[in-house]
Amino acid sequence: MSTIADVAARAGVSKATASRALSGNGYVSAETRLRVEDAARGLSYVAHSSATSLATGRTQTVGVVMPPVDRWFFAELLAGIQESLFALDYDLSLYGVPEGSRARERLFDQVLPRRRFDGIIAVGIQPSARELERLQRADRPLVSVGPYSAGSSAVSIDDTAAARIATEHLLDLGHTDITFIGGSADAAELSIGDARRLDGYRDALDAAGLTAQARVTHASPTMPGGYAAAAGLLGDRRHRPTAIVGVCDEAAIGAVIAARRLGIAVPAELSVVGIDDHEHAEMFSLTTIKQSPREQGHEAVRLLTLRMSDPDAPAEHIAAASALVVRSSTAAPRQ
Amino acid sequence: MSTIADVAARAGVSKATASRALSGNGYVSAETRLRVEDAARGLSYVAHSSATSLATGRTQTVGVVMPPVDRWFFAELLAGIQESLFALDYDLSLYGVPEGSRARERLFDQVLPRRRFDGIIAVGIQPSARELERLQRADRPLVSVGPYSAGSSAVSIDDTAAARIATEHLLDLGHTDITFIGGSADAAELSIGDARRLDGYRDALDAAGLTAQARVTHASPTMPGGYAAAAGLLGDRRHRPTAIVGVCDEAAIGAVIAARRLGIAVPAELSVVGIDDHEHAEMFSLTTIKQSPREQGHEAVRLLTLRMSDPDAPAEHIAAASALVVRSSTAAPRQ
Repeated sequence: MSTIADVAARAGVSKATASRALSGNGYVSAETRLRVEDAARGLSYVAHSSATSLATGRTQTVGVVMPPVDRWFFAELLAGIQESLFALDYDLSLYGVPEGSRARERLFDQVLPRRRFDGIIAVGIQPSARELERLQRADRPLVSVGPYSAGSSAVSIDDTAAARIATEHLLDLGHTDITFIGGSADAAELSIGDARRLDGYRDALDAAGLTAQARVTHASPTMPGGYAAAAGLLGDRRHRPTAIVGVCDEAAIGAVIAARRLGIAVPAELSVVGIDDHEHAEMFSLTTIKQSPREQGHEAVRLLTLRMSDPDAPAEHIAAASALVVRSSTAAPRQ
Repeated sequence: MSTIADVAARAGVSKATASRALSGNGYVSAETRLRVEDAARGLSYVAHSSATSLATGRTQTVGVVMPPVDRWFFAELLAGIQESLFALDYDLSLYGVPEGSRARERLFDQVLPRRRFDGIIAVGIQPSARELERLQRADRPLVSVGPYSAGSSAVSIDDTAAARIATEHLLDLGHTDITFIGGSADAAELSIGDARRLDGYRDALDAAGLTAQARVTHASPTMPGGYAAAAGLLGDRRHRPTAIVGVCDEAAIGAVIAARRLGIAVPAELSVVGIDDHEHAEMFSLTTIKQSPREQGHEAVRLLTLRMSDPDAPAEHIAAASALVVRSSTAAPRQ
């Protein structure tokens, strides 16, 4: 079997240069990289990662812990993390287990501590105190994406502000009868991000002197969840609000679809605003608060590489950008 | 640092038993497993996977190559693969790169051959001959999910049959003016699965003596893609078909939404059928061909473990189940 020395000799470079060219770590000119790659191909040279890892103490692998990728946000975020890690020649080990499951307990107690990663990105999970202690005992750089953090670097939008701005947009248009769709009757089921969005909605009503008008219709943060909640809410003509804030675009789009089926014109009879700028938001002309989970994925990797190169670097919190995008699902209420 | 021998001594079991209890490979009683885990915790024992891997020649890692997880099918499939691998204590290394990109070339030429996996699952990608040769040279068990295969085990539904059955359902109701929404004017952009679905649509029309009636409106296999295509198609009252076959549920749902916006009643004035049974199909009362990507993920892992335990096992092709689900988006055409 060929060694890195064989490759270096064939390419006419030093072993260190050959190693840099093949690992992608450190600078090598494009021309040299091609020559080394040609030599490696000619010799059918394949570096074996386990051996490399024992020699260098690095695994070139980042563990990513995230919920099942069944929501647009997580799929986009994962794409961003993948893009950045791939460009840096890091492998991505993916772990996704539902909260409160036995599998999750095993993940934190046994699987993660035993694996060797150069770093971990934890997405949208809310580790218990015990889980956090496990992660920190593993003593590897940790970056979280989402609204929690505990000594780790973190990337997230300001969920409270996002929902407040969405609600203020409706207040500015003249609405006073605004229902929030989302959240759960069971506080334990509510993600911290979604709970903060509910806070933001309440904050805006409080500031407008409309505290007593706050109304929440519980719904899962999905299109069918928003559809079912809105169908129930809008079906009763006497208690129909003039505007809806969806906890996310999926729920808001579900509400738009329910309104159309009931023959309620959006925005003439009902204004709807979401949060996210989901890929389907434009198709439904949805006014929303735009964020980019893909860019948040890039940011998370950038923060992680900073901590991997200097474990003593201070934890950084990045407030990801979000902004109101006004489309045609919102208008002044009918007089 | 504690060794496995320390853990075994503390738990009062043999080293082999301690190793089985901690690795999850092989039978250990629940009571013994707990005792060993307690001992390991007490000693802060953490097995290191690289060292384990050099000793055993196994990495307990499976590489998964798949397109960006931005479609329901891929997200569900990935969830199924994750569930099965996690239950078997395998790590999942995820690689997703767009077709035809430089990154993809690097993935097949350099990244995959250099990583040590116990096996690879390739999803919905269409490796070129050169890429396949690279994968096979790596000489690791390979299972593909999707419509291609070349000496590897594979799991997929029969896409041709699925689209034929969907089209036959419309023919049986009395439709003769049926448009297929999906596919691309550029054959290179069309996935093999989507191309086979188009074949199935044509087969059904051929068998009904309606070859000349086949009409295709190109659309990306997404909700906005189906929406845009249907809006164009249905906007012209003179050339409006009585029924639509969507290449997938996303495209079919986009068509239903476009019809509603144009005031065209589904199914009274337009029947729409999809393929997949996407999580939103029920919400739109969509008649469709149901398949379960999550179960296909479980099947893929099962096939892979068979080949990992016996590399000489013959390649197996699993035809995943699919079945017509009639909801209320289809009916006989208006006379």
